[in-house]
Amino acid sequence: MENNKAILNTGLRGVTVASTRISDVMGDIGKLIYRGYLVQDLAQRASFEEVAYLLLHETLPNKDQLQAFKADLADARHIPYEMITALKTIPKNALPMDVLQSSISMLAHHDTDIHETSRDAFCRMSIRLTAKISTVIAAWHRIRSNQEPIMPSAELDHAANFLYMLKGAVPDDEIARFFDAGLVLHAEHSFNASTFAAREVASTRAHIYAAVSAAVGSLSGELHGGANVRVMQMLLEIGSLTGVETYVKDALNAGKKIMGLGHAIYQTDDPRAHILAPMSKSMGEKTGNTQWYEISKRLEKTAKEAFKQHKGRDIYVNVDFYSGSLYYNMGIPVDLFTPVFAIARIVGWAAHVLEERFGDAAPKPMLYRPESEYTGDYCGPDECKFVPLEKR
Amino acid sequence: MENNKAILNTGLRGVTVASTRISDVMGDIGKLIYRGYLVQDLAQRASFEEVAYLLLHETLPNKDQLQAFKADLADARHIPYEMITALKTIPKNALPMDVLQSSISMLAHHDTDIHETSRDAFCRMSIRLTAKISTVIAAWHRIRSNQEPIMPSAELDHAANFLYMLKGAVPDDEIARFFDAGLVLHAEHSFNASTFAAREVASTRAHIYAAVSAAVGSLSGELHGGANVRVMQMLLEIGSLTGVETYVKDALNAGKKIMGLGHAIYQTDDPRAHILAPMSKSMGEKTGNTQWYEISKRLEKTAKEAFKQHKGRDIYVNVDFYSGSLYYNMGIPVDLFTPVFAIARIVGWAAHVLEERFGDAAPKPMLYRPESEYTGDYCGPDECKFVPLEKR
Repeated sequence: MENNKAILNTGLRGVTVASTRISDVMGDIGKLIYRGYLVQDLAQRASFEEVAYLLLHETLPNKDQLQAFKADLADARHIPYEMITALKTIPKNALPMDVLQSSISMLAHHDTDIHETSRDAFCRMSIRLTAKISTVIAAWHRIRSNQEPIMPSAELDHAANFLYMLKGAVPDDEIARFFDAGLVLHAEHSFNASTFAAREVASTRAHIYAAVSAAVGSLSGELHGGANVRVMQMLLEIGSLTGVETYVKDALNAGKKIMGLGHAIYQTDDPRAHILAPMSKSMGEKTGNTQWYEISKRLEKTAKEAFKQHKGRDIYVNVDFYSGSLYYNMGIPVDLFTPVFAIARIVGWAAHVLEERFGDAAPKPMLYRPESEYTGDYCGPDECKFVPLEKR
Repeated sequence: MENNKAILNTGLRGVTVASTRISDVMGDIGKLIYRGYLVQDLAQRASFEEVAYLLLHETLPNKDQLQAFKADLADARHIPYEMITALKTIPKNALPMDVLQSSISMLAHHDTDIHETSRDAFCRMSIRLTAKISTVIAAWHRIRSNQEPIMPSAELDHAANFLYMLKGAVPDDEIARFFDAGLVLHAEHSFNASTFAAREVASTRAHIYAAVSAAVGSLSGELHGGANVRVMQMLLEIGSLTGVETYVKDALNAGKKIMGLGHAIYQTDDPRAHILAPMSKSMGEKTGNTQWYEISKRLEKTAKEAFKQHKGRDIYVNVDFYSGSLYYNMGIPVDLFTPVFAIARIVGWAAHVLEERFGDAAPKPMLYRPESEYTGDYCGPDECKFVPLEKR
């Protein structure tokens, strides 16, 4: 193919690999839509359950549809007792994303639809995964903290129920609403690395648990879902407003990346950051811990100016920049920030797996199987001559 | 990019995404080399351990290097007792590839190098994964068969030790040699779907367990590693030599794929099939069950002729065509054929993860993040107008 040289070793940046009806990331103008709807509208006016329905079923639900969907989700929240037993065998210092990744496949063992290949079955499994991922994460956090897991409450919405299972207390309405909006903002983002991994696995006709487990692995990387953890670690390292200037200067001098700035797709501020920032501010005011928001705000301003001045170009905030301080003030442990990302993104992954398997663009089996250019040895015009062990 | 339309929804077929020094698949002339060496030479003259060393370290080992490498592998064969406990919580009818996928992340919990990011640490983790995957699969098969897992034997080579742990008896030398050659033939195949998944996950700077778990998920699909299972199911369905003609005719009439024929890359016979066929024959003679090899042989001839005659084109055997009957006559359960593929391919995955993280072509972080073309709704020139729940 003509432009293969241009693609080589660029991580497929700028290469359009597939069509999708799920979301559009307009990086140049900072616009993100899910199934046609602006993410801002959804975050401010729709619940996570409505958005999950939208992503899976292509349209926003009416009241009856939403009620049935919420009931399905609530019914699916429990995890098998054997899984609690298995979670208790895991060393307490295990990485939460590893625990989540192994749990996804363990959930597969207990799903009676696992051999089914219809769209309906994949949809049922998607709902179960969406429900159970938050239970697994909360249960694991309780177990590693030497506390018994808390049973999910069918009375609560998805966001509130997670915080309840994590902490053992029903959150107040505003906190639940902020967490819910955070889930909506993280639910979907086209062919990001984890979603691409999920589609890649689904393209071999593996089941949805195998695909989602791969996505969880991809999300765990510090260049992807691990970035929100590193933003918070950076804020903690900066520690106070007075530390911001020095931090930015030192980072620029050392050629070090400032976490939460810059994105593979956006050439302007990430629209999600504009929703997260005021929520982070309100959450800080609510808890009396405004410093993390304030440090973030000054860091954004200082870093943007310094970039312009020293590098002659603009830099923009991404989704991770304000989510860390929001979650931190909610009392979510820093190492659960990436699992919380997964609680949201599972519906995007599921929608993409459904599209990969059953979408219009993929009527026939076509697995992702790129080619590579061999740059290793031949030891001559053909191949290396094999030398037996005795003569090496 | 100019040719994006050509790439769209083709599963990246024919698109060269990266350079690699690990292997070259010359699909037009049916040649496969690992680090410069013909796969035939390696299968016939080198052990799996030598080939694993070659793939990880770029050169064939000398005697001392091989001895040290074999000792490292043998030392790493045990799995933690907690994992046996966890495996015992899994329903006995779980899919073996799901059990393997969840086990990979469970192994991560117990690896003391998990926070390390050096090439050396990744190499140590690669050796542990290579050693432990075969122990996990054998242990799971024993547990689901209501038998206690058998401790690995440090006296045996990798291939023989797996068969010993699976069956509780040390295999004879020839069977061990056939199994070893099968592992060599399946060890590596450039950017196949599972390896691409592993590299994709590693590109986010996730650890090697996360990457290998994703690869296992991808391999589980019936269009990829699951194909060897389907070949054997087909042979069992055909049942006898007299059933071959009818089967081929019916398949062609129904437009149904004949398993084990055709490949995304090879436009001639897969060189691995030419090594596997005589081994399948010998294994059949050894056990007195020659029918599976004979059915395969006649099926190959009949299908090739029928394709030529009815479709006017050639069709070729792939690696899965003769591996099924070989493993079947070794007494390996059919649903373990794909896990056995993973026992071999783990070294290819590991070599690719090492290359993705530490190779010359990837000096800077560049995660796989392609783009997509949105073909969904906007409901107008901009975006859909949000309608609140009450009005839907």
